[in-house]
Amino acid sequence: MFLVVGERINTSRKRVREAVSHRDAEYIQQDVIAQQEKGASYIDINAGARIGHEKEDMEWLIKVVDQVVTVPLCIDSPDPDVLKIAYDMVKKPPMINSISLEKKRFQTMVPFLNGKECKIVALCMDDSGLPIHSRDTIDRAKRIAEALEDTGISRDRIFIDPLIQPVSTNTLNAVTVLDAIRGIKHEIPGVRTICGLSNISYGLPQRKIINRTFLSLMMTSGLDAAILDPLDQDLMAVLRTTELLLGRDDFCAKYLKAVRAGEIQT
Amino acid sequence: MFLVVGERINTSRKRVREAVSHRDAEYIQQDVIAQQEKGASYIDINAGARIGHEKEDMEWLIKVVDQVVTVPLCIDSPDPDVLKIAYDMVKKPPMINSISLEKKRFQTMVPFLNGKECKIVALCMDDSGLPIHSRDTIDRAKRIAEALEDTGISRDRIFIDPLIQPVSTNTLNAVTVLDAIRGIKHEIPGVRTICGLSNISYGLPQRKIINRTFLSLMMTSGLDAAILDPLDQDLMAVLRTTELLLGRDDFCAKYLKAVRAGEIQT
Repeated sequence: MFLVVGERINTSRKRVREAVSHRDAEYIQQDVIAQQEKGASYIDINAGARIGHEKEDMEWLIKVVDQVVTVPLCIDSPDPDVLKIAYDMVKKPPMINSISLEKKRFQTMVPFLNGKECKIVALCMDDSGLPIHSRDTIDRAKRIAEALEDTGISRDRIFIDPLIQPVSTNTLNAVTVLDAIRGIKHEIPGVRTICGLSNISYGLPQRKIINRTFLSLMMTSGLDAAILDPLDQDLMAVLRTTELLLGRDDFCAKYLKAVRAGEIQT
Repeated sequence: MFLVVGERINTSRKRVREAVSHRDAEYIQQDVIAQQEKGASYIDINAGARIGHEKEDMEWLIKVVDQVVTVPLCIDSPDPDVLKIAYDMVKKPPMINSISLEKKRFQTMVPFLNGKECKIVALCMDDSGLPIHSRDTIDRAKRIAEALEDTGISRDRIFIDPLIQPVSTNTLNAVTVLDAIRGIKHEIPGVRTICGLSNISYGLPQRKIINRTFLSLMMTSGLDAAILDPLDQDLMAVLRTTELLLGRDDFCAKYLKAVRAGEIQT
């Protein structure tokens, strides 16, 4: 089953930032409940946007979300201190977003991860920057998977993010990611892949059709999970239809249920 | 470049049947002009629905369409006599739709094809019926490509149709086609692939989202052409977006042009 990480609880979104600064628990809880209802398998929590407030914002968010959430959380921060506070509060083993091959980031994260029961998003980013060719992305994925395995994190807990760059800056940027996903799944069996969606369409108009079509293409290439907005009905309709077409919907039951709920409209 | 074969001039469509029976040339010509404007690379002409009238209907249609068409036609009939009438009238080498491995059909078509300059749609159908597994489809594609090459039809003129069966009757029917397209392109280099779209969604509600999502998945797997309605704006928007993402739209020029023309809306 394809995993949806619901991206909405992020203080870089204006409405969420306001709710957090006013400690409006109801707004946050309603949003989390809605994301779960629409199919989120994880709820991402990012409290990074109110500079100087990340720790207490994250602590408040986890406390509030914990009262209504039934799925695990995805704790989204580069700061191990913030991650630790959140990790100690959650009921279910979370996903940690994220680690990378950047030396300082990797070394800071490893002590936090040590002995913890969690999934980890691993970015194909190193100190030289973003990957350029799919071969480069696959090699970075191998290096970070090996490095994580060396610290005791088993492969089935690793979600590799190949990192998407806009198709507007290079016509082949989307193909590079599709090839990378196929290569990672082939060359590192057992590892999973994850992506955000919006970078691909940066700089172009009508971005949503690009994002949702690219999701479908990446799923066909083997993508296992995506960080996205489960309340975007058109996006979720394409996701469910792609699951149907990829043979993951016995008797078309989930597709038909979504149609009956009015969630798939053409 | 992905090839669109415009499917609208087909007497099984009520409005076209009426236009043909009333010899309403203007309606037919406007429709052909519209299909060309929206990106058809071929215009399919099928006069099979008015039983007993196919020959004269096809003759009339070709004469009328020929006055406005700028792209080649796709002559759609199982009857070599009808094909011959049409072939002798067209200005540009047409596509012939279709031949198959069914013994009688193959033997009837070969004398017609002999020495003619045309593309040919070859269905993966034999006397035992439809293919079941992708391996079966690929083997049939090989057999029909070889048989056609033996009669002097070069590989670059052959468009293999793997034949789509509804995902409602077997959860894996879509995956089978995706695997078959990849296999055909890999094992018969130089041959092209083509499909109709609507069978995949037979028996399900909200069919259009299934059809257009499947088009996108098939294009990612290597599909070269599809028989479809170029006036279906949502379908064409997904097609253009997929071309963009597959790296076939330098500087996003075609995508941006379509957006400016109001053809891509989300």
